[in-house]
Amino acid sequence: MDDVYVLGAGMTPFGKHPDRTAADLGAAAVLEALDDAGVALADIEAAWVGSVFQGMAMGQRALGDGGISGIPITNVENACSSGSTAIWDAAMSIRAGVYEVVIALGVEHLTGQFRGAFTPDESDIEAQRGLTMPSVYAMRAQRHFAEFGTTTEQLAAIASKNKRNAALNPLAQFKKPVTVEEVLASRMIADPLHLQECAPVSDGASAVVLVSKAKRDQLGRGRAIRLAASVLKSGRKEVGLPEMTFEDLTHRAAEEAYAVSGIGPEEIRFAEVHDCFSIAEALRVEGLGLFPRGEYPARVVKGEADLDGRLPVNGSGGLLGKGHPLGATGVAQVVEVVRQLRGEAGDRQIPGAKVGLAHCRGGKAQGVEGTACTVNILTV
Amino acid sequence: MDDVYVLGAGMTPFGKHPDRTAADLGAAAVLEALDDAGVALADIEAAWVGSVFQGMAMGQRALGDGGISGIPITNVENACSSGSTAIWDAAMSIRAGVYEVVIALGVEHLTGQFRGAFTPDESDIEAQRGLTMPSVYAMRAQRHFAEFGTTTEQLAAIASKNKRNAALNPLAQFKKPVTVEEVLASRMIADPLHLQECAPVSDGASAVVLVSKAKRDQLGRGRAIRLAASVLKSGRKEVGLPEMTFEDLTHRAAEEAYAVSGIGPEEIRFAEVHDCFSIAEALRVEGLGLFPRGEYPARVVKGEADLDGRLPVNGSGGLLGKGHPLGATGVAQVVEVVRQLRGEAGDRQIPGAKVGLAHCRGGKAQGVEGTACTVNILTV
Repeated sequence: MDDVYVLGAGMTPFGKHPDRTAADLGAAAVLEALDDAGVALADIEAAWVGSVFQGMAMGQRALGDGGISGIPITNVENACSSGSTAIWDAAMSIRAGVYEVVIALGVEHLTGQFRGAFTPDESDIEAQRGLTMPSVYAMRAQRHFAEFGTTTEQLAAIASKNKRNAALNPLAQFKKPVTVEEVLASRMIADPLHLQECAPVSDGASAVVLVSKAKRDQLGRGRAIRLAASVLKSGRKEVGLPEMTFEDLTHRAAEEAYAVSGIGPEEIRFAEVHDCFSIAEALRVEGLGLFPRGEYPARVVKGEADLDGRLPVNGSGGLLGKGHPLGATGVAQVVEVVRQLRGEAGDRQIPGAKVGLAHCRGGKAQGVEGTACTVNILTV
Repeated sequence: MDDVYVLGAGMTPFGKHPDRTAADLGAAAVLEALDDAGVALADIEAAWVGSVFQGMAMGQRALGDGGISGIPITNVENACSSGSTAIWDAAMSIRAGVYEVVIALGVEHLTGQFRGAFTPDESDIEAQRGLTMPSVYAMRAQRHFAEFGTTTEQLAAIASKNKRNAALNPLAQFKKPVTVEEVLASRMIADPLHLQECAPVSDGASAVVLVSKAKRDQLGRGRAIRLAASVLKSGRKEVGLPEMTFEDLTHRAAEEAYAVSGIGPEEIRFAEVHDCFSIAEALRVEGLGLFPRGEYPARVVKGEADLDGRLPVNGSGGLLGKGHPLGATGVAQVVEVVRQLRGEAGDRQIPGAKVGLAHCRGGKAQGVEGTACTVNILTV
């Protein structure tokens, strides 16, 4: 099977863009990724497009607005992992030897779909009774407290770190650092999670151009970043209480990514993970094996996950700081890893970044388990 | 690249099933396909699931209800080609050598989503002004009349043929033959298209198990059907008036399928095509090069597309007779081709069926052009 490389990356500013459309945002990300890759519209052989709430033919509309039509386009949906699932499918087509230059796009325009937070589906009986995402994660936080002695202040430190990183990211939704005290003073959403610990409603798009090894050699060896592993898994039905604080789904995806790439967790220099809530970041990095189980929140307080720490987490600002336009999130994580590995991350550059990991998951279709989880490992 | 085989096929009855759910229907189709393939739940390595209006994580819900969880699942949407796009992506994973046993599922429960016909999206300005699917196809019919002298009676003969075939298909939504006179006496929807010339609102699911050549040799050489070509294309923005009666999109997909498979249109023994309206069937088979341009409706009157004709079209009853649960349609076409090639089509069996073609398209995102079109060619 062919190696896969990211040759180009693009993303729009994340935030509230009521004056723009999903297609318009998607086209902007596509054109930036193409420009970054140094490839033309006509070079793109196929596309995978992740979104959740954008309706029919999102990819055809966005790519069409960008000037690309006629090629095979697959719209994919996997809840908050929609964008990273698009990358997974796109990478497969290159591994298959079917294509040499493809694009994965993630896009979401939530302000065009919902007034305020998005509401649970009528068929979601649990959510209709109050078991919405914030309450699920609040319960998981309480359980983390009970099992490991984690504290409210420690979780607030995660949110504060990510907002601080976001302030260094020109494309982030939030531009202002937020102290631990400010997090704790913000409105309680679901005890112990405050407003500043919950990902916002966002609009945005992100895209990556993936190429084969032969194309990389021909087009841009210097700027290409190797996709050493791209793994997708869905949740298992049989999991139960242990999964509240240890993510079987994340763990399984990570184990396969480490095996496929031959890169172990000890070699990961930095990570972008799915911090839809402050507690979520702890669950992710512990499930990934990047920090010892139960210890992450305390280690954040010690600065270990800071940009200049042992293993920076969500240097981009993460979902909490950069924003969370659902379908765009998984692709944007990979865009960030690519920029860090190229040394293009500006004020938030992580020194010596040679190996990065992007983790994305979504959904709660199966109890506390999720719809989908992806782990991508990238190297210079 | 590996050859790809269909080892198992399953589908629910198509029709109005207000008492069932999309997940329930999907699970039933999956279990039948697995049983037909002789593989176990645990043998399925990955899944692609096509649906249009079923909301988040359709695949995870349906497969989970069937007893499959944990594996990589991608939900795909490409308007009425969603199911056949799932097949295309699933086949790619086998060609990539990544998996050996995967499943493609298509599912839709329209009666659970809409009261009556589904309504155009608010953002679809053309449809809001009346340019809905029936009016688009009515205009295309009028243009076919003007260019080729096609008549209302000839189009009605297409619908009558498909309802007649459906009456031989135990899984079809419509069980009663309908005469040309009855078609013409049905309510006018968009001149010249009568109610009996428009695909109905349907619920249903369909699934195929795809395997590699090595797995076929191991598991079921006798029942396996070769997927000689699987092609996906999207519409081009630049097409215009000629496309009203000659489908550039269908034509391009077919040309690639013929090239990939080495099987030309003259070798196709029978076809399942996307007859969302009577005129649509003519546009498809003419675009596919299976009948001379402009001549198809007259040839239907002569019986050339009948089950015992030169090239039977929509022997299953097609969308008009079998029903059209959007996401399920493209997979169901392949299910039908598989059953014909195996000689399992009962009263509607086409004698000497060794090579069949399935054509599916959807959407009108770009003027008269479509969102997506797939062509699958299958052989014994």
